[in-house]
Amino acid sequence: MLRPYYLRKLSSCFLPTFCTYKTSAIPELTQVRYKIKRGNYGELQDKDVTFFESLIGATNILQDCQDDLHGYNVDFLRSVRGSSKLVLRPGSTQEISEILKYCNQRRLAVCPQGGNTGLVGGSVPVCDEIVLSLARLNKILSIDDITGIVACESGVILENLDAKTREAGYVVPLDLGAKSSCHIGGNVSTNAGGLRVIRYGNLHGSVLGVEAVLANGQVVDLMSDFKKDNTGYHLKHLFIGSEGTLGVVTKVAILCPAISDSVNVAFLGLNSFDAVLKTLKNAKRHLGEILSSCEMIDASSLAATTENFNLKSPIEGFPFYMLIETSGSNVEHDMEKLNGFLQLVMEKGDVADGTYTSEPGKMLEIWKLREFIATALTKDGYCFKYDISLPLRSFYEIVKVVDKRVGHLAKRVCGYGHLGDSNLHLNVSCPEYSPELHKQLEPFVYDYTSELKGSVSAEHGIGFLKTKYLAHSKRPEAIKIMRDMKLLLDPNGILNPYKVLN
Amino acid sequence: MLRPYYLRKLSSCFLPTFCTYKTSAIPELTQVRYKIKRGNYGELQDKDVTFFESLIGATNILQDCQDDLHGYNVDFLRSVRGSSKLVLRPGSTQEISEILKYCNQRRLAVCPQGGNTGLVGGSVPVCDEIVLSLARLNKILSIDDITGIVACESGVILENLDAKTREAGYVVPLDLGAKSSCHIGGNVSTNAGGLRVIRYGNLHGSVLGVEAVLANGQVVDLMSDFKKDNTGYHLKHLFIGSEGTLGVVTKVAILCPAISDSVNVAFLGLNSFDAVLKTLKNAKRHLGEILSSCEMIDASSLAATTENFNLKSPIEGFPFYMLIETSGSNVEHDMEKLNGFLQLVMEKGDVADGTYTSEPGKMLEIWKLREFIATALTKDGYCFKYDISLPLRSFYEIVKVVDKRVGHLAKRVCGYGHLGDSNLHLNVSCPEYSPELHKQLEPFVYDYTSELKGSVSAEHGIGFLKTKYLAHSKRPEAIKIMRDMKLLLDPNGILNPYKVLN
Repeated sequence: MLRPYYLRKLSSCFLPTFCTYKTSAIPELTQVRYKIKRGNYGELQDKDVTFFESLIGATNILQDCQDDLHGYNVDFLRSVRGSSKLVLRPGSTQEISEILKYCNQRRLAVCPQGGNTGLVGGSVPVCDEIVLSLARLNKILSIDDITGIVACESGVILENLDAKTREAGYVVPLDLGAKSSCHIGGNVSTNAGGLRVIRYGNLHGSVLGVEAVLANGQVVDLMSDFKKDNTGYHLKHLFIGSEGTLGVVTKVAILCPAISDSVNVAFLGLNSFDAVLKTLKNAKRHLGEILSSCEMIDASSLAATTENFNLKSPIEGFPFYMLIETSGSNVEHDMEKLNGFLQLVMEKGDVADGTYTSEPGKMLEIWKLREFIATALTKDGYCFKYDISLPLRSFYEIVKVVDKRVGHLAKRVCGYGHLGDSNLHLNVSCPEYSPELHKQLEPFVYDYTSELKGSVSAEHGIGFLKTKYLAHSKRPEAIKIMRDMKLLLDPNGILNPYKVLN
Repeated sequence: MLRPYYLRKLSSCFLPTFCTYKTSAIPELTQVRYKIKRGNYGELQDKDVTFFESLIGATNILQDCQDDLHGYNVDFLRSVRGSSKLVLRPGSTQEISEILKYCNQRRLAVCPQGGNTGLVGGSVPVCDEIVLSLARLNKILSIDDITGIVACESGVILENLDAKTREAGYVVPLDLGAKSSCHIGGNVSTNAGGLRVIRYGNLHGSVLGVEAVLANGQVVDLMSDFKKDNTGYHLKHLFIGSEGTLGVVTKVAILCPAISDSVNVAFLGLNSFDAVLKTLKNAKRHLGEILSSCEMIDASSLAATTENFNLKSPIEGFPFYMLIETSGSNVEHDMEKLNGFLQLVMEKGDVADGTYTSEPGKMLEIWKLREFIATALTKDGYCFKYDISLPLRSFYEIVKVVDKRVGHLAKRVCGYGHLGDSNLHLNVSCPEYSPELHKQLEPFVYDYTSELKGSVSAEHGIGFLKTKYLAHSKRPEAIKIMRDMKLLLDPNGILNPYKVLN
């Protein structure tokens, strides 16, 4: 039976943001844990710091000798730790150009960093690379009220960009758990996916233009005010998803869809994965153009948020849950569609229980159950995260297989994610990093995914942590072209070294 | 007042298809008209033909000495004419690989050709390049009924692909006037736009994977069954929109949206361009997620179809017309939204008259008024075509400016196109190709567009005819990267020479 939404007042509703997340556990240095040989790069000297000070001012430079660089050296998951001694915080494209030109000449390695919310160790140094923080490039440049095209600098925080865009009647076609910290430039550089790819597609479709700075300091202006521009090779795509290894994204132009007057969220309980799949198919068919999210959460994932953040789920006791969101332009039409869909899936017996709401506060409470999972799992201690694309027919099998394999070594083995995009987040949490568990999980998970012809990184990227497994999803001839392109655009290999290609 | 749709029975309803279009006028050889110096390529010899015969069989080879190669040498618009003496029609990726490997070794230039419906001279030889026809690679490989992901060979005709996809409950997210002849591989290679970009976005968003053959014969398998795959550089985008100059696309995987149960078309008459803009804004706001096309047609464009194809428009006497299409999942909801929108724009006085229908036959009749314009204008004799992106506020000015400049030399100066995507088709027709008119139009149109920071090719590409004007929309540093990438992937420059980069 469908019940109107009710949540008891949460006794401790803590909104985790990625930037404020703190832990006492400090990961081992990446160079040590992963036995990384430092590349043949220049060593930082006093004269370099003097040059950077003259360029961007001493106040925009952080040094190991006087500042705490921990937040720049350690990733959100505490999986990796670099040993950078210098953080540069330039304020303009031109300054970044000068910095890179200098670094390229001196062969100083550079790690571009946005909100440092990446989950594959791509946004922190591996060794002693200079951190190039984009945080001061935080200006929104224009919002076109007829076309919905938004132009901004790359260091704008996603949530801030979305808030300003909404004021103009549009929404940023990208939403993800880290929105309060992540930068739009980082999102573009990693081709971030998130919660609404099912509705708005990926960033290759919605990013209309970028400005990027190459390793040699050359600024490449590929900004655009247009949805259509077929003049020559579509170079902007080189910088979308290449994780800062081909250039540093400094500006982006994004096509934003109109804001939806009507938003609904349903939270459903289901007794089998087969029922989940049937419900997905019915959601696509019956919610059609208003379906804006279709997420799956298994019982173990839900338990992580309810336990670790003391949240209360409106329904309980099911092996699977689905969070379905609709966004449309007409409240009555959308409600009628949602009611029709819910009635159908209840009558069919695919959905056993559920609740739905259109009240913003209550929708937020439901979304927290999904969005806090990633953070909740790290509160278990340490979390091995796998972000994979799998054929829907085999989507959940891997969670069961992995549970059988390592369940006794783990605190939690769980699966959740963007079902509508065939994108599973398989997570294994434990009290602290365990080499034994690591060994049991890798390469097993990647081999398993590869055998199903899945993708070993659906939306998180390769970063540092997955370089070994790139060949599980990319063929040798493609990797060869990647290497050639890296050599073409960054012959000295100074941009985000040890990442993507190793 | 809105009237129910009624069209008198058309006395001569001729459906033009691009492949059957015939003309007696033969354009001058491109090499002569444009004073092109043949590149330093190998000359075709008997031994080459013998090799190709051994590879793909004599029946799949057409030779100038025994076959009529006119259809392969001349483009649809009769703007350009190559002098190829050999057409190869391979039947598989492997055969294409062997052909290119051989041609690369012998430095024989190759012009890949799909449906030959391109409008910028990109799909026919400039000099004596070997034509590599993709027509026999016409297999649909798979249609996934849960995800809507379709995989096929590149020579499948768009209309055929769409028909099969519809049988499975999905639609190809691309539709354009040439659909009955153009190949999906050609569409991908040119990043074709068309009529529904406003709804489904461009091909960079919906193409999930490609297989391409490089100049040296290397097959690059970048096919994918997934919406999300962030493993390394997103190389497929190199082949989307690079017009066959970096590789020959042999397979594609496309994400197809669900078929719409409800489709409506409205055809509206408006008295000013200002009213057109206001109506676009209202359409986006009030039709929201069901808006699937928003086209503008000026009086002169409409006259071309009604006169040259003896079609009858349901409304007449306005300077501007708009064709608005909705596609959604619920007939009643969509009709209510459309009615609400139409009532609003009529009450505001922006729309002076109009008609709408959901009957398939009648919708087709209305669509013909828009889709036949391109062909109708060529029936005037010769047509100079400009496909540009412009800021919406200045969208129609250029038509008036050009009319004032060359109206006395032309039969028709008109503007129509994808208003919802800021994409104008400016066309100037005349009885036959006129160098004087050409000189008056170019570079004027491109200079004008460039001053408004528009794109000199919104969706047609650069091909051969626009190479001179690439720099009007691309900055020198971007062109430098393009050249570097061409050199990297096709060092001998055998793939579609004289195109895109000259």
